[in-house]
Order: sequence, then C-alpha cells, then structure tokens
Amino acid sequence: MHIELINTGSELMLGRVLNTHQQWICRQLADLGYEVNRQTCVADDARQIQAAVRDSLSRADLVITTGGLGPTSDDITRDLIAQLLYRELTLDPETLGRMEQFYSQRHRTMPASAKVQAMIPAGARILPNANGTAPGLAIEVNPNPFRADGLASWLILLPGPPRELRPMFAESVVPLLSQELPPAEKYVCLILRTTGLGESLVEEKIAGPLKIFVEAGLDLGYCARIGEVEVRLAARGGGAENMVRQAETIVRELLGNLIYAVGDETLESSLVRMLTEQAKTLALAESCTGGMVAHRLTNVPGASAVLKCGLVTYSNEAKQNFLGVNAAALEEHGAVSEVVARQMAEGARQRCRADYAISVTGIAGPSGGSEAKPVGTVFIGLAYEKATVVKRQFNPFDRETFKYATSQQAMDMLRCALLA
Amino acid sequence: MHIELINTGSELMLGRVLNTHQQWICRQLADLGYEVNRQTCVADDARQIQAAVRDSLSRADLVITTGGLGPTSDDITRDLIAQLLYRELTLDPETLGRMEQFYSQRHRTMPASAKVQAMIPAGARILPNANGTAPGLAIEVNPNPFRADGLASWLILLPGPPRELRPMFAESVVPLLSQELPPAEKYVCLILRTTGLGESLVEEKIAGPLKIFVEAGLDLGYCARIGEVEVRLAARGGGAENMVRQAETIVRELLGNLIYAVGDETLESSLVRMLTEQAKTLALAESCTGGMVAHRLTNVPGASAVLKCGLVTYSNEAKQNFLGVNAAALEEHGAVSEVVARQMAEGARQRCRADYAISVTGIAGPSGGSEAKPVGTVFIGLAYEKATVVKRQFNPFDRETFKYATSQQAMDMLRCALLA
Repeated sequence: MHIELINTGSELMLGRVLNTHQQWICRQLADLGYEVNRQTCVADDARQIQAAVRDSLSRADLVITTGGLGPTSDDITRDLIAQLLYRELTLDPETLGRMEQFYSQRHRTMPASAKVQAMIPAGARILPNANGTAPGLAIEVNPNPFRADGLASWLILLPGPPRELRPMFAESVVPLLSQELPPAEKYVCLILRTTGLGESLVEEKIAGPLKIFVEAGLDLGYCARIGEVEVRLAARGGGAENMVRQAETIVRELLGNLIYAVGDETLESSLVRMLTEQAKTLALAESCTGGMVAHRLTNVPGASAVLKCGLVTYSNEAKQNFLGVNAAALEEHGAVSEVVARQMAEGARQRCRADYAISVTGIAGPSGGSEAKPVGTVFIGLAYEKATVVKRQFNPFDRETFKYATSQQAMDMLRCALLA
Repeated sequence: MHIELINTGSELMLGRVLNTHQQWICRQLADLGYEVNRQTCVADDARQIQAAVRDSLSRADLVITTGGLGPTSDDITRDLIAQLLYRELTLDPETLGRMEQFYSQRHRTMPASAKVQAMIPAGARILPNANGTAPGLAIEVNPNPFRADGLASWLILLPGPPRELRPMFAESVVPLLSQELPPAEKYVCLILRTTGLGESLVEEKIAGPLKIFVEAGLDLGYCARIGEVEVRLAARGGGAENMVRQAETIVRELLGNLIYAVGDETLESSLVRMLTEQAKTLALAESCTGGMVAHRLTNVPGASAVLKCGLVTYSNEAKQNFLGVNAAALEEHGAVSEVVARQMAEGARQRCRADYAISVTGIAGPSGGSEAKPVGTVFIGLAYEKATVVKRQFNPFDRETFKYATSQQAMDMLRCALLA
C-alpha cells in the first residue's frame, strides 16, 4: 500500500512553525503497521496545493492532507479538492447544526464566515470534529483519473489544529482505515528506551546476537537522541509477535537496567511511577540545569504526590541560605565541585524532609569555564538514606543541550538507586 | 525562482523524530528573500529518493537535499545522485585529508568505512564540513534532462546532523546562492512579537489601518502560538524597506507595549536583557509551573547575573518552610488563591533579597479542580519595591500547554512592571 501525506500552510513554508503533524501522523500510522512513502508540504496557494494533491493521487492508495479547512480566506483546501475531483459542494444541515451547537455551548455567536465549513463535497464521508468546527472529510476517489494503473484511492482531509486533528484521527480515521484499507499483514513494533550508553555502544552489544533474527526479517532500528537511544524491534506477518518477543528477551538480557521504559514512557514519567509505587518523596537542588529537572518531572500528572520541593539555587547566596552549603566549601572548592554537590543534595534532602534528593552544579556555558573545569563540567549528587553519591560528568554541548543531557543523567542516577 | 527541499530519513517517515530541518532551512531562505515552493520527505530507500530528486529537478531551479551523506549503510544519497546524473565518483584527496585531520584532532582512528564520504561526483563543488566528516556538495545540473523547459538547476546536498548542516549553510550555501541564484528582488521582512492579546484581536487592531499598505503589496501575516502572536511585515522590490518601516510605525502605535520583541528575541531573553540593563535581580516562587519559568530564564546566557533563586514549592509544607506562607492562609483560602500567591511572591522577594519576585500557584490538571476553581485556574503574583500585585488567569489547556501559557503570562507581568 502506497501512502502519502500532504501538509499545507504558508507558515510551514516560511519556517515560522515546526511541522509536528508529519511526525505525529507518521508515528500513528507506523504503530498501526502502515508505511508512509512520501510526505509533501506546500504553502496556502491554490496552484501548489492542487498540484501536490494531483501528484499524490497519481501514486498513492491513500492520501492524507492537513490544514486549510477553517473559515478564513487562506483556508482553501476543501474548495480546491472539490474542484479537482469535480464534486459539487452542498451545505450539510447536520454539520451546520453541530457547529451552531459548538458556538452556543461557548456562549458565542457563530460568524457568517464559519458556514463554509459545513459545505461538503458530493459523496464525502464526514469525520466529526469534537474539538472545533471544521469536520474532516474522507473521499473515495473511484475512478481515480490521475492514476495510470486505474486503481481507486482514498483521500482524507484533516483540519490543521492539533487539538482537533489528533482526536479526529483516533476516533474516525483509524476505524475507517481498518475497514477500508486494512494493513496487508500483521505488524508488531516494540520500542525499548535506553539511557546511559551511546548509539554505537548499544549497537555493539545487541547487533551481533540479533543477526539471525534480522536475517529472518526482524526490523532492528536505533534512534539516538540527547541522553538516550531507542531500540526498535519490529516484524510483519504471522510470526511477528513471536519474533519480536524473542528479540526483546535477548535485548533485555544484554542491556538490563539500561532499558528504562517501553514505548512512549519518558524517563520523568517512569521516575514518578517508581517513586509513587515505593511511596518515596524527592527534593531537587539545581544550579546549572536551572529548573529543568523540576520542569520535566512536573510535566507528569501526579508529580505533586512525590516531588516535595525543587530549589533552583543559581547564586552562591541561595546555595547557602536555602541548602546550608557552607561558605568555606564554596571558597575552597568553588560552586562547581564534588563537595558542594554533596552538600547541596544533603541540604535539600534534610530541609525538604524528602527520601531522595538530587543536586546538580556545573558550567552550562557559553562562558565561565576554566582549564580545570571547562564548559560542560558538571557534578551530580544523590542523597538518600543509605548514602550520598556524587558523579562528575562532561557534557560539552550548547547551553540547552547541556541542560537536557545533564537532567537526563541526574534522573537516571535516581532511577538506578530506586532499582537497587 | 522555484525552490524545493527534500529531507531524507527513515526515522522521519516512521515519526520517530521531528523534521527540524524543514523549519530551519525554510526560515533561513525566507529571511534571505527566497520562497520554498515544495518540501518533500522520503525514507532512506533508493527508489524513493531517486524518484523524489527526479520530480523536484523536473520543476525547480534549486533543489536542496538533507541527509544520507554519512558513512553507514543507510547513507545512500551521494551515490544515488551520482547515478541519476551519470556523474563519476572520484576520491578527493583534499577532502580525505581534512577528514583524517578531523579524526586525529579527536584522538580517534578513522574507520575504513568513513572514506566513502570523500568520494565526489564529477563537477561538484565541495562545501567543507567544519563540524563533521561528510562534506556538502553543490552540483549545477546543466543540461537538466528532467526539465521540460530545458533550463538548468542547482542541486545542493547537505549532511543530516543539524550541528553540521547549520554552519555549512551559513558559510557555504548562502554565498553560493547570492552568487549563482540571487533573489530576483530586494526583500525585507520584519517580525514583531506580541503577547497579551489573541490573534483575532491583534488582527482587529491593525488590519484596517494597514489595508492601504496591503493593497500596495505589503505581506501582512500573523502566526499564533501559545501565549503569543507574531506579526509579519514583509515587502519586495525597491520600496520594500520604506514600506515595512512605515507599516512598523503604525503597528507600534496601535499595539504599543504588547510588542515585546523584534525578530528572534524570546520573552525570556528580553527579560534577562531588561533586568541586566536596569541592574535588578529576580526571585521565583513556582508551584503549578513546576520550574518552567526558571528553566526558560536559565536558557538565556547571562541569566545567572539576574536570577538569584527559583523555588519550586509544590507542597504546602515547602510553601511554608521556604517562603513563609502562613498555615492560616493555606487553610482558609487554599494553596490556589490570591492571598497565597501574594505571600509566595513577598516571601520569595524577601528571603532571596531580590528586587522582583514572581509567584505562580494554580491547578494544572488533569485532576484537582473544583467548581469554584476549575482546572486551569491560576494566580500570578509580582512583588517589588512599590507594591505586590496578583492577577487571576484561566488557562484551560492540557498540562504542558497550561504550564507554558502561564509562564508566558507571569513573565509578561514582570516585563510590564520593568517598562513602567
């Protein structure tokens, strides 16, 4: 099955916004066992949108477009596609009623310009929009005049706002696909998320032992991000589940605790889960990460039950006042030192009355480095009942990457302690 | 001029990573006055890459590809394009020497597999890679067998890693474009960044007065993001600079202090700049934003000079211990209240001995809401020498959007106070 995705939007082609739809939709389809063969992006321009849709319809069994269904003057996709396929647009009273209800529930009057969103091309299926006004549309292009092989294609039009597109995809597109375009074969995909080793070292550990599986059809992939490596195990066909399960067993044996989560779970959510399960609390004392560890942990619903307090003690004064770091240690060893990291972690644990405390002190740059402690040097401390441990790390990256990589290492230190 | 961009990478088509190249390259080109007409993305698959390059070369004056120049088995772009254009590949001794130097500087041995990166298609210009091994390539496709109009095209191949691509673009691609493919007309583009009003209200204020400019050729655009709206003023041709400057004057008159920055400056960097200029210090007391304000501010180099301390007081206990919020206030009004926001801001300011202190307390959700204080309710406090002010806001979004929108409002409160 050949699938193409078309994203429309001048703001995308001007580079003002990131194309998050591409990743999100490709990811959803991959998880369902579909492969997207080509993704195209064009501006809100009639000629270019029509050309892109025509090109995709000449090749694909399924074309999905995003954007251009709203009420403003640059929302032109619905009209252009009706034109391209010679389908008449008629006002759908049910869609109009749903839109009027949407406005009245929000105590707003529906502007006259909104009505255009209830115009439906002949023969299109309506995909209701639970979070906005413009419905999605699904059109079976049969016959498909653009295809040399004479086969039919499906064309699915989705609205641009992610808050509208994502629920619509789950509620309407997935059922439609499983009914009209079921994947040719069973597909199983498992993502194991690891932290603590680089991509080539992860590959070195598992590629050899998995070779016979790869030869038998296992899709083994790696995706390196800052501070983590994802291992993808996927297979198609009748034996897919069995093959992926066997490969998983081998990878788990070889990588052990380097694997911190499966699928979409993040390091921060796995930490909140582990702390909650063990009924333990956490305090943070961050200097160079500047609140990023706290920010990441508090992105997880339920973090309030385990995170007692985070202290972003950027200045020496704050390290002394809020954490009890002593002036002598700061003077003798400097704020970026093993001794200060230890005092920060112990001070945070004690003053916040938490079971665990993480401390971070380092040089994010671009300035502030020295020969003995170059930019990228960081000390990470962990204080808990049994002991206080401090690790020295070196993350010579730009400021934001430094913060992320360091937050990853700090959280992983806690994770390993919680596993022990 | 017709320009197309092709991004290659299976991880993009599987939805494992965001396509940041599209935004970055489109943005660079837009700022130089070039319009990108189509962007295409395909997997690391020989047939699909060749088809995409052939399609783009049939339409475009300039085609830029990213990815597939490295040493591993899925890096196939260089070979495919040499094949497609019937250009022989020969080892370039200078490139090889540069690569050997790259490895030796890092005290590593160059693997034999790396050598393929020094294979250069006949007639290609080499774009040196200062941050990696694979050089970029620029090929004038003349004659261009894929174009019906018989015109020549330029094909530029860039490496995938952003750390390599971005400097190479600035150092080699920009000069090549200005020499070989200069923009047809002068182009001026100004971005004014506003916060505090929604997109439609910004449009309502300025669209009418700018109508005559738009009729005379001004490109007026809006880009709404969480907690901010960008206004784009752009024009082409001889009078472009004058037209943009006049439009800017009108927009500044109408929007005044709603405009917080020009171009790429963020709200956090403008705050660090203003605090530095006024030699003032800041303390933070965050509850529901969980450290995001601290995190955003500390992304700005130089933040350490103005941010004394950030306290992420998630628990009531931490609010009492570290900020001196009193138990009676917590009991009577609850942690999410005007009174507690006030005490948090004043406590942070006093205990951190800062000139300004921001406090945030609210309900990020998904749970914790009530009828009187539904999920999304937040109180933002600002304490400074003259007064303490507290604003109640309502941000009924998902957890991460809530945190971002709230951090934006909190920083804007401080910005307005610094302007007064």
